[in-house]
Amino acid sequence: LDSGSVEQARARQSQLTKPPGSLGRLEEIAVQMAGITRSVVPVVQRRAVVVMAADHGVTAEGVSAYPKDVTPQMVLNFLSGGAAINALARQAQSDVTVVDIGVAADLEHPNLLSRKVRRGTANMAREAAMSQAEVLQAINVGVEVIENLAEQGLDLVATGEMGIGNTTAASALTACFLDVPVEYVTGRGTGIDDQQLAHKVRIVEQAITHNAPDAAQPLDVLAKLGGLEIAGLVGVILAAAARHIPSIIDGFISSAAALVACALAPTVRDYLFAGHLSVERGHRLILEKLHLEPLLNLQLRLGEGTGAVLAMHIIEGALRTHQEMATFAEAGVSNKNA
Amino acid sequence: LDSGSVEQARARQSQLTKPPGSLGRLEEIAVQMAGITRSVVPVVQRRAVVVMAADHGVTAEGVSAYPKDVTPQMVLNFLSGGAAINALARQAQSDVTVVDIGVAADLEHPNLLSRKVRRGTANMAREAAMSQAEVLQAINVGVEVIENLAEQGLDLVATGEMGIGNTTAASALTACFLDVPVEYVTGRGTGIDDQQLAHKVRIVEQAITHNAPDAAQPLDVLAKLGGLEIAGLVGVILAAAARHIPSIIDGFISSAAALVACALAPTVRDYLFAGHLSVERGHRLILEKLHLEPLLNLQLRLGEGTGAVLAMHIIEGALRTHQEMATFAEAGVSNKNA
Repeated sequence: LDSGSVEQARARQSQLTKPPGSLGRLEEIAVQMAGITRSVVPVVQRRAVVVMAADHGVTAEGVSAYPKDVTPQMVLNFLSGGAAINALARQAQSDVTVVDIGVAADLEHPNLLSRKVRRGTANMAREAAMSQAEVLQAINVGVEVIENLAEQGLDLVATGEMGIGNTTAASALTACFLDVPVEYVTGRGTGIDDQQLAHKVRIVEQAITHNAPDAAQPLDVLAKLGGLEIAGLVGVILAAAARHIPSIIDGFISSAAALVACALAPTVRDYLFAGHLSVERGHRLILEKLHLEPLLNLQLRLGEGTGAVLAMHIIEGALRTHQEMATFAEAGVSNKNA
Repeated sequence: LDSGSVEQARARQSQLTKPPGSLGRLEEIAVQMAGITRSVVPVVQRRAVVVMAADHGVTAEGVSAYPKDVTPQMVLNFLSGGAAINALARQAQSDVTVVDIGVAADLEHPNLLSRKVRRGTANMAREAAMSQAEVLQAINVGVEVIENLAEQGLDLVATGEMGIGNTTAASALTACFLDVPVEYVTGRGTGIDDQQLAHKVRIVEQAITHNAPDAAQPLDVLAKLGGLEIAGLVGVILAAAARHIPSIIDGFISSAAALVACALAPTVRDYLFAGHLSVERGHRLILEKLHLEPLLNLQLRLGEGTGAVLAMHIIEGALRTHQEMATFAEAGVSNKNA
């Protein structure tokens, strides 16, 4: 973060007509945004949520409550504006960029970015989900998406995803990077019962045992246990940080991508905001590991970028108070120490 | 709450393109809003934050970090648009209604509602803060403000306040209604140190002992230990509920008003949303007593209605997803049980 901008933003906060610190995290957000953007009074105009969609071979093991047909069906729902992310993006005046990075179906739509790396991952319970070349290609898709948005003047990006089976991949990645038992980081996803949850834990354990990823090699772990949409989001997060654009991370799957990105480049963490705390049990552990405090806690577990886009209002509130409030001198208000 | 609207709103939620329950509290909010407004798909157009301002005689005891001149100075700041509440209200497209219900200074401004009941309360450490007649008059001011806003089509109201010394009054009310030791519910307000905090606790204890309010008589407690702005907000909360208008309660002081309102009319609680959890230590206890879960937790402690207005975006997100999302049938998405 740019320390000059951070210091000047802090100095500005201390002059605004409120008791010092009384806006709590809004003050911290404004200061962090100043450091990210290298602007003492940052503004956020262009916003986008990047929704990466892909399928997961591991759904063959019966780990999800929904059939994998739902992935392409929901992509079409995003494109026709009928999903939760569309409603919340309209509210937040955010663009929605939908990317087919690996859906296991043929999809065509004028507003769809078709960047299919392959038709879904392989079944990680039996083989590596992807090759190293495919992982790099998927990361590059995310980088390219951000490069294009940045050229149009992107100020703030939210990460979103869709992929039946992707909490299974996120659990495997999280167990591996945090070195914790699989059951600590495996939840009910879209809504499986106790028996199905026990089965999902076994499948994730099998995937880790069978693939034996090297936790010190983030790309090896990502290739063996990840997903195409997760790799794409790694690219989004890395490229946004490189461009000094803040990212709001959504829930468990997006946070697994953030975990990989921070393993590759630890300073990226300073460019991240955690949009919310998901119900998925592994999510809290990832946020603790990354020292990120969620902005919202509304028991969401939908993904798509919903919690991240809802959190855009908090970031905007922080920037509006930082920018628009009068100083003690301007307003003729007595300061505490005056 | 209207049970027909609640049931129909629940039925609608189960048809929207998402796993059941995956929007967490957003779903609950939409259903509660349906019950409050008696509309299956409620819309929130006109929003207002009512900021009640008044002074407190107990500031003579040195309980606050700021001089009481700050009350009228901040009222003028609200009226010229330079306070935190103005910035956040502009973001949320909310009107700001500023009411002088008892500032101890002469204030005039075309946009100020001048409804002064008296020039600040008496010093509750030595006598009752107000008479019963004054309490009723202050409650009536709040009722009248809501009646006028409702005639213009108010859909959602946030409670706000300004008054140097008013955390002291809120602590006294809270200790009394919750029957807990004063130190459990007395915090640092605008920023006092340990020694000043110990003094503040003693002053609140003295106020309770000296006035000996009858906890079974909410108006007696309010008169002896309350504030004019707190009484005004009691009127706001009661009148909004009577008109089927939801209220978003801000922090500690607003919640003390909600506590009084619910003591007078327990069903009012169903019409309330807790905007956020304040740093003021008594706040959590009030919310637990009222069984209200805060929508935000951002370590705010400013008051003015800031946390409540910021929470308007969460309510809007709940209503937008409820209204705008496609159903499984509309979008051609496979349902879990299909």
